[in-house]
Amino acid sequence: MTENKIAVIGGTGDLGFGLAVRWARAGVPVVIGSRDEKKARDAAERANNVIDSGMLPGLAPGPVGGMENARAAAEASVVVLAVPFPGQAVILKSIRDALKNAAEGTIFVDATVPLAATVGGKPTRLLGVWQGSAAEAAREMVPARIPVLGAFHNLSAEALQDLGAPLDCDILVCGDDEAAKQKLFPLIQLIEGLRPVDAGPLEMARITEAMTALLISVNRRQKVRHSGIRITGI
Amino acid sequence: MTENKIAVIGGTGDLGFGLAVRWARAGVPVVIGSRDEKKARDAAERANNVIDSGMLPGLAPGPVGGMENARAAAEASVVVLAVPFPGQAVILKSIRDALKNAAEGTIFVDATVPLAATVGGKPTRLLGVWQGSAAEAAREMVPARIPVLGAFHNLSAEALQDLGAPLDCDILVCGDDEAAKQKLFPLIQLIEGLRPVDAGPLEMARITEAMTALLISVNRRQKVRHSGIRITGI
Repeated sequence: MTENKIAVIGGTGDLGFGLAVRWARAGVPVVIGSRDEKKARDAAERANNVIDSGMLPGLAPGPVGGMENARAAAEASVVVLAVPFPGQAVILKSIRDALKNAAEGTIFVDATVPLAATVGGKPTRLLGVWQGSAAEAAREMVPARIPVLGAFHNLSAEALQDLGAPLDCDILVCGDDEAAKQKLFPLIQLIEGLRPVDAGPLEMARITEAMTALLISVNRRQKVRHSGIRITGI
Repeated sequence: MTENKIAVIGGTGDLGFGLAVRWARAGVPVVIGSRDEKKARDAAERANNVIDSGMLPGLAPGPVGGMENARAAAEASVVVLAVPFPGQAVILKSIRDALKNAAEGTIFVDATVPLAATVGGKPTRLLGVWQGSAAEAAREMVPARIPVLGAFHNLSAEALQDLGAPLDCDILVCGDDEAAKQKLFPLIQLIEGLRPVDAGPLEMARITEAMTALLISVNRRQKVRHSGIRITGI
């Protein structure tokens, strides 16, 4: 485990890859996890190439590594899950042992959105999750001593991957562990254009996850691709 | 029925009163509805006093009238419902005949949020509504020929009532009738600081209503009172 190393589980997908690239460019060591080690290593190589060509002057990039999910999770003190909803439970089971043995202070961040589109439904609709939200479902599966946060739901994966694209979005963070939030917030602030906003307890992820479907609906109506949200008055 | 006269049903409450005052100050004729005609007239008088003392130069205020709900609804071409969730169905029944006889082009706008707090629960939680949202529940009760929109959920009622307070919030409008949206949007734009955003079909009100609970949670965490939302990237 490396302090402040981030494992992005599902880092070969659009959202995970985008987060990995943005963090690595900001100098944070990142490891991309995938079920398939080769895919993870390929994505890491791709990430390092993107970063080399879009590096901010004066910063040494954190080189991106690639590993099988459980090994990636074991490497990091911040484990971010960014997979399509149907893969969430299976992958959580596969990294459960790694999280059980994780060092003190390790946090888990769930970015899963239960979009109906992930099982063939409409992109503007959500599945009902028994626990209330994907983040609360993750809470049941992640060992109790590891705090669980919900975050990054409302971020355009496409904009995130394009290092030339300015980001303009608040990251609503839900969770019941104050120290975990204090650990994640500075990592969010490292990505230019993002601002962390404490949205309250983990159960508020029912709403922040749903807001992804709302933004997809707004995108369709406004014929744009990267709508985001900002909280005003704070 | 007067073209572009707005009836605010539940206009004696915070949100409804705030909308009535802001629209009247912008020169739109407004009638405040209440179950109790006397209360409606008192609220109208209070609104007219607020407007007289906070009038924008060069605009003639639309004088605010006060009437029992059904009569108010019959007067207007835009009927806005702004009542606490437990009153929604009862009041909709009481204005149903007025809406049945409403002139061509009349639209109905529901601002109801099924907050758990309205039946003694937490302010950051929602009740489950069988139809999916309060707006969809309204759709069942409003005569089929009158288009139903959901809007104004995420607006701070307190800021709205204080004519000195600048507003900074997008109004997410949900609905299945394009012409109705085109009728409401300019009315939203008349209130400085508000911007209408087409959020898609009426079913998206499940999310826009829920976002009210999210903003209440943000208010609590950030120790502010008037958080709102803006959509970026559009």
